[in-house]
Amino acid sequence: MKGKFISLEGGEGSGKTTAILFIQQWLDKQNINYLMTREPGGTPLAEEIRQLILTPREERVNDVAELLLVFAARAQHLAQKIQPALARGTWVVSDRFLDSSYVYQGHARGGDIAMLDHLADWVVGESKPDATLVLDVPVELGLQRVAERKHADRLDKESNDFHQKVRQGFLDRAATEPERVKVIDASLSLEEVQQQIEAQLVALQQSWTREE
Amino acid sequence: MKGKFISLEGGEGSGKTTAILFIQQWLDKQNINYLMTREPGGTPLAEEIRQLILTPREERVNDVAELLLVFAARAQHLAQKIQPALARGTWVVSDRFLDSSYVYQGHARGGDIAMLDHLADWVVGESKPDATLVLDVPVELGLQRVAERKHADRLDKESNDFHQKVRQGFLDRAATEPERVKVIDASLSLEEVQQQIEAQLVALQQSWTREE
Ligand SMILES: Nc1ncnc2c1ncn2[C@@H]1O[C@H](COP(=O)(O)OP(=O)(O)OP(=O)(O)O)[C@@H](O)[C@H]1O
Ligand SMILES: Nc1ncnc2c1ncn2[C@@H]1O[C@H](COP(=O)(O)OP(=O)(O)OP(=O)(O)O)[C@@H](O)[C@H]1O
Ligand SMILES: [Mg+2]
Ligand SMILES: [Mg+2]
Repeated sequence: MKGKFISLEGGEGSGKTTAILFIQQWLDKQNINYLMTREPGGTPLAEEIRQLILTPREERVNDVAELLLVFAARAQHLAQKIQPALARGTWVVSDRFLDSSYVYQGHARGGDIAMLDHLADWVVGESKPDATLVLDVPVELGLQRVAERKHADRLDKESNDFHQKVRQGFLDRAATEPERVKVIDASLSLEEVQQQIEAQLVALQQSWTREE
Repeated sequence: MKGKFISLEGGEGSGKTTAILFIQQWLDKQNINYLMTREPGGTPLAEEIRQLILTPREERVNDVAELLLVFAARAQHLAQKIQPALARGTWVVSDRFLDSSYVYQGHARGGDIAMLDHLADWVVGESKPDATLVLDVPVELGLQRVAERKHADRLDKESNDFHQKVRQGFLDRAATEPERVKVIDASLSLEEVQQQIEAQLVALQQSWTREE
């Protein structure tokens, strides 16, 4: 039986990494094999590409170049890590995936959505996540939650308007593919957020055990 | 007046770098401003991408990932270096460009030509070279010419069959776009090769000065 593929999405400080720790505990309790990963990254080459993207640099990074780097890392991540794991029945949980490209490079930066669709078809195809959880918080709350952090990377330095577009972009993704993309109200307490996530995991597990 | 954009193409050891030194001398004699560059590479970020592509590694590099890395570097190279130079009237001479992607990732590795066309349209668009010189030599002669080299990179290690496909791929590119892509018989003596190249440069210069 093929493993399930879950992606976590949302703006800065929305609680993705925290949610993943909770999902990991839940999968442990169910005795399900899993693999935790993240994007951009997930393989040695893909992590090197991630470094290229996130390192602050003098040179202006062309938007098309950035988008292609993200999809190059994704092609490698899928072929070398995600697809083999799913094929052997392992669940895969990724901190960010395809929807972040639509939201950051498409909605927020005004990238070419037709080209994003081509790249998504070509690189991801049938390998979209079985469930994508969008952690939705007001921009101010997310930024406040991560405010203590010492160093900011290239993307953290964007304007408030940019972060607003990111939030709206994720909500639009959920509206476009409601079967796959679920919005979690992540402004609530940790416990309430985890209850919403658990409900989605239980639904996914039921669809999974029914396939047996 | 916009500068002219020339790319040099051909298999390993066909004489691209040698030809570029000759072109440089010729441009000096004509008092034309020029910029020499190469692909993949040409800007700091694009050169970092080049390193990712050429470094031999344990991890199998996915074909789609490699193609997207090449086009990411190209988008950056065009936006940050080639287009600004041409706009200020500087000629640009590149050691490899778009045709190498068609030949290596398309013809030789069986990549998706429709996707190459999409990427070419999207990343390069109207910025194709004004003239592309394909240095054509029998595979054995090219490999013999570079045989002394100490270290081989990931692409140098390919089979003879691969190199044959590369040679044929470049000839096909010339057949498809004969106005832009010119075949130079590079199996001849250095002097005879340079005569053929000079004829192409003179033609390009005449089209250029006519625009004034
Ligand atoms: N529901 C919550 N209530 C209060 N604080 C939370 C909640 N969820 C996460 N946090 C805290 O907010 C901060 C950011 O959370 P986390 O690192 O999980 O976000 P993230 O989406 O992974 O951020 P980034 O985009 O930077 O990776 C952490 O300090 C975390 O403990
Ligand atoms: N017409 C020629 N006749 C004989 N030797 C040549 C000729 N052109 C180039 N060479 C020699 O062949 C070798 C390879 O040439 P060069 O480095 O220019 O090829 P290249 O296409 O740039 O190779 P690579 O693909 O490895 O970059 C050099 O030693 C060069 O001096
Ligand atoms: Mg995180
Ligand atoms: Mg060379």
